[in-house]
Order: sequence, then structure tokens, then C-alpha cells
Amino acid sequence: MAAISHSMVDSQTVIALDAMSGDLGPEVVIDAAVFVVQNYPALRLMLVGDRPVLEKLLARHGNQGDFLNQITIRHATEIVTMDEPPAQALRSKKDSSMRVAINLVKDGLAHAAVSAGNTGALMATARFVLKMIPGIDRPAICSALPSAQGHTFMMDLGANVDCSSEHLYQFALMGSVLVNALDNAESPRIGLLNIGEEETKGNDIVKQASQLLSKSDLNYIGYVEGNDIFGDKADVIVTDGFVGNVSLKSTEGVAKMIAEYLRQEFSRGIVSRVIGFLALPVLKSFKRRIDPRRYNGASLLGLQGVVVKSHGSADKVAFANAIKIAMRAVEHDVPAVIDRQINKHNEAVA
Amino acid sequence: MAAISHSMVDSQTVIALDAMSGDLGPEVVIDAAVFVVQNYPALRLMLVGDRPVLEKLLARHGNQGDFLNQITIRHATEIVTMDEPPAQALRSKKDSSMRVAINLVKDGLAHAAVSAGNTGALMATARFVLKMIPGIDRPAICSALPSAQGHTFMMDLGANVDCSSEHLYQFALMGSVLVNALDNAESPRIGLLNIGEEETKGNDIVKQASQLLSKSDLNYIGYVEGNDIFGDKADVIVTDGFVGNVSLKSTEGVAKMIAEYLRQEFSRGIVSRVIGFLALPVLKSFKRRIDPRRYNGASLLGLQGVVVKSHGSADKVAFANAIKIAMRAVEHDVPAVIDRQINKHNEAVA
Repeated sequence: MAAISHSMVDSQTVIALDAMSGDLGPEVVIDAAVFVVQNYPALRLMLVGDRPVLEKLLARHGNQGDFLNQITIRHATEIVTMDEPPAQALRSKKDSSMRVAINLVKDGLAHAAVSAGNTGALMATARFVLKMIPGIDRPAICSALPSAQGHTFMMDLGANVDCSSEHLYQFALMGSVLVNALDNAESPRIGLLNIGEEETKGNDIVKQASQLLSKSDLNYIGYVEGNDIFGDKADVIVTDGFVGNVSLKSTEGVAKMIAEYLRQEFSRGIVSRVIGFLALPVLKSFKRRIDPRRYNGASLLGLQGVVVKSHGSADKVAFANAIKIAMRAVEHDVPAVIDRQINKHNEAVA
Repeated sequence: MAAISHSMVDSQTVIALDAMSGDLGPEVVIDAAVFVVQNYPALRLMLVGDRPVLEKLLARHGNQGDFLNQITIRHATEIVTMDEPPAQALRSKKDSSMRVAINLVKDGLAHAAVSAGNTGALMATARFVLKMIPGIDRPAICSALPSAQGHTFMMDLGANVDCSSEHLYQFALMGSVLVNALDNAESPRIGLLNIGEEETKGNDIVKQASQLLSKSDLNYIGYVEGNDIFGDKADVIVTDGFVGNVSLKSTEGVAKMIAEYLRQEFSRGIVSRVIGFLALPVLKSFKRRIDPRRYNGASLLGLQGVVVKSHGSADKVAFANAIKIAMRAVEHDVPAVIDRQINKHNEAVA
């Protein structure tokens, strides 16, 4: 676990940013970097990508003060594209901005890597370079979703299509450590996603995972259902990557449809338009509450290092949020805590 | 398939309504029945439940004209409760309103049964009494969800937690027949729910189901993702009951949360309240579009008879919609068409 220990670098937190892989190009990453360092004087960011391009873009911020000393550039010649098969990216793009950013974590030169690139390639590269924490079988993707009272974390969001009950248990343990770090939650409430709350519901894998969780030290609250993601029952909701991914995309789809319906109703005729104009501040405040940018930044858990995936089309605000999630995961040394806890669990079981 | 053939009864469509099992009691079922028969002079409805209670409630509508001749009462002494285990309902409540309504279909006295009762008990009872269509291994629950252009059907919504690729194929066939009946869609577009559109995505069961569908006569369009439920890509989206149920409940949860956020924003201070008051007609029109009552009525497919499940808390409008779905399924003889098509498929495979 040496690569992710704080002692390898100085007391400042250093985060490597893959500056080239997002849909919106390096501008967004640089704008987000400049925005974040202004608020965190102890933070250092390494922009990874095409040096001439990055230097030129960074120069635009030249008159904004000393904080630019917190940002350095690391050259990388290649870019992993959004539709590139993970195995191909891994094999043939050894000098991609994504790969170099993760190498920096492995080499102890950065505490974390943030990338808005291709999820499959990022996961494969991070797993190959950083390796899994011993005792964790599968990496998992965990992110926050808005809920009635604030937000709820859900995992796995798509890294694993088939999971055993032991995998689901490991996800719960990792999610508990992450949410403890990100939200300072003492003992996050863990819910297991199922199609009913009764003990008889669900398939065998879910039932067995429920038994494992009941016997554990985790704050397991039992089964939850799809609608509970948006309630206040659990802090972390655990499921396999197929169900998690479908559930996430379903809710994104319905939210988009509702927003479009609302827009249509307020543009139907002159009276509705005038009312819509008057209602703009209210509608804007509403929009802020469901703004997906506030939840941007999915943690890749189970690796010997902190890696955060930003949405491909993340803007400055959204990418900045992903950087902050990486910062908090580093401050709490999430991989080391997961390592300790899975060891403790495995010793208790053995 | 004799029980569901039109020739067993006269040319009128007869639908048995379980009048006792919904959360809101028999009033809602009777109000819905009176509402529907006024628009369909050839429809006959049989209210199944406690005769004195039903007679008294029906008498309230006594001055509303001749159409009451279209409604008859069938006595049943018991009620299946919402939390009753399916096996217990099946074993010990042989004179429940639910069981008697389904018996009427089996005995050829009704073409269809509609119930707002316990889904598990309804499914178990319908399967036991009516039997499966030969060649269909598992019953499935199919319902419409609102989409950008109208609606999309999804199945299975929770009857089967583990499914083989052949089961998913059978669901697609049944969904295609149902949507042909309900929407007069010549060749409904079938999508298979997955976590990406590329061929390499998904688990083995989904990949094998995709191969079966590609070789079939169905209008299979390939993989779709969670957000496509609310788009216009497919008419029927097929998945297993675990994923379908979680996806359905997730979207219900997010829609409810968004509606609550909107309500909160329009009640924040006097100015917002005034604007909210002015915007009432627009907000009401918006609410109508996402009104779940318009989509009430899930078809239990694969049985030798038409059975429609209404939401437990369905009101008059919602329950009336479930009755209309049963009517259309009867008019198109959905079970007989499924029977013919699965035979044709099995002969082609053999």
C-alpha cells in the first residue's frame, strides 16, 4: 500500500488530472483546476497532457495571481478516445494522459488521479497499474445521487455485471469507508437493493449478501427498494453493476423527461410564457437542486490508490467537484482504511 | 385454451372485478365500474365481493340510468390482505374476491379479471387456477411507462428474479403481442435492457437472449439502456424482474422527489407563492402529463386468460384505465395469440 501513503510525498495533497480525455477538451479541466486551487492553498494539481496546448491555455489565467504555482504540467503524447476498447487503450496507449496520470499515483508523485475519460479504459488502466487492494476481488464504482434530504451513495454503477454475495459484501464495506470520508458520517447506513423489504424477497445472491452484512460490523439496515435511493433510509445503497447502472440511467432518463415536459408547458402560448418568465428565479432555484454537476465524481473503489471518474461532458463546476471528492478521499486515506477493514473482516472469518 | 375463447360466452365482453382487495376499498372499484360502462354499452362487469356491501354502494348510483344493468354482483366471503403470503392466500382463502374473480375466467363466465390486490397472491392464484400457456415457462408483468413521445412498455416488472435467455425471449414475444393489441402497433420495436449498446456489454444471459431475438421474427432493435425507457427507441423493453422492478421503483422515486422539490420552491416566501398561484394552470397541465394514473394496469402475461393488476392505491380514474386495458386484451384475444406464436416459434426451433 506504499504508493498511496501520505509519507511518500510532502504534506501537501497532490492530484494528477487527466487533462485531455473529456468530451469538452482541456479548457474545462484547466478552468476547474484554476478555480479549485484558489480555495485550497495546500493543494497541488498536475495537469497531464499535451504540454504546448496546456501551457497556452494556462497562460490565459496568467494574471490571476500566485496560485498558478500550485499547478504544474506533465507531458503526455496520446489520448484515449471515448469509444476505445479498454484492452486496446491499455496495450497500445502507454503514453496517454489517462495512463500517465495513473502512473503518477503508482510512482508516489500524486495521491490521486481524476479523469473524465472512457470509464472502461480508466477502470482497466487503474486496475492494471495500481493493482487491487489484497482481499478485494473486484473494483466498484460509487457515486452520490440527490435525495430528498441531501444525497445517497450507490454502488456498483457498472463495473461488474455479475456479482457474488461476497462481492456485494465487499462493496458495502468499501462504500462505508468512502462515505465516512466524504461526509464525515460516523457509521454510514448500508442498504441492500432488492425488490421488496421482506426477508423472502430477492434472488439467492442478495439473500446471502444480506446474511453476510447482518453478521458484520457495518451499520446494515436491511433491504431497500428502488425508490429508497431518493429517500433518507440509507447512506449507501449496494447492488451489482448491472442493476446499479440501469437504475442510474433510468433515473437520469426520467429526470430529463420531466425537465423537458416542464419546459414545454411553460412555452405553450403567450400566457404560459409570461408566467414562465415570472417564475424563472423559482425554476432556476429548482434546477440548481437537481443539478447533476453537484454530484459529479464517481469513486473507483478497491484499488491501491484514489481514482475519481468525472462525467465525460463535465463542465468547470462539475470537474471541480470531482477534484474535491479526490481531495477528501486522499485526506482520509480511503484505500488504506479499506485495506485495514477488509483484513480485519477476513481474519474474523478465517 | 378454451377458457379464454370468445365463443364460450356471448359476444359481449365480460370482465370480473375483484372489488375488495385494493387499499381504498370497494367504493373506488364501483365508481370506476359505473364510469366505464357508461362509455361501453357492450361491456358487462361482474363485481366480486361482499354482496351486501357492494349492493349498498352500487345503490348510490341508482339514479344514473340503465347502464347499471351492465353491472352484476358475485358474492365472495373473504379478502386477501396486502401483506398475505401468496402460498397462504392460495391455500386458505378459496372464497376470496380475488380467487372467485379468477375462477370466473377459468369457468368461461368472464373474459378477464382485474384486481388491485397483493401482486404475489394474484400471480400465484392466477397461475394455479388458469395455468400457463403451454410453451411459456414463466408469467411476466408488463406495464406502460410515460415517455417523451407517449409511452414505453417494460417487462418483467417483478414476477421473476432470475431469468434465462429463453425466458427473456418469451417475454419479448408476449410483450410484442400485448402491445400489438393495446396500441394497434403492427410490429412493436423490442429492445433488450443492457448497460451499454455495444455487443460486448452485459452478462451472458443478456448476450444469449440478444442472439435468440436477432434470429426471431420479432422486430428486435438491439440493446437499449435505462434512459431509453423514456425516449422513443423501443415500444417494449425486456429485462428480468429484478432489474425491471428496481428500475420502475427508482424512476417512481425520482419523479416523486422532483415533484416535491418543485412544490417546495414554489412555497418559499410570498413572491414565490404568488408566482406559484399564477403558474397553477401550467403546473396542473404538467402534473397531468406525468400522472401515473394514466398508466395504471399491468398485464400478467403467459397465463391462459387475461388478468390485469391495478395499483393498490388506484383511484377511480386509475382503476378505470386498468379495466380498459383488460378490455383491449380480450378484444385481441392476447392469450390465444401468444399461444399461436410460441407454438410457431417452438416448431421452428425443433
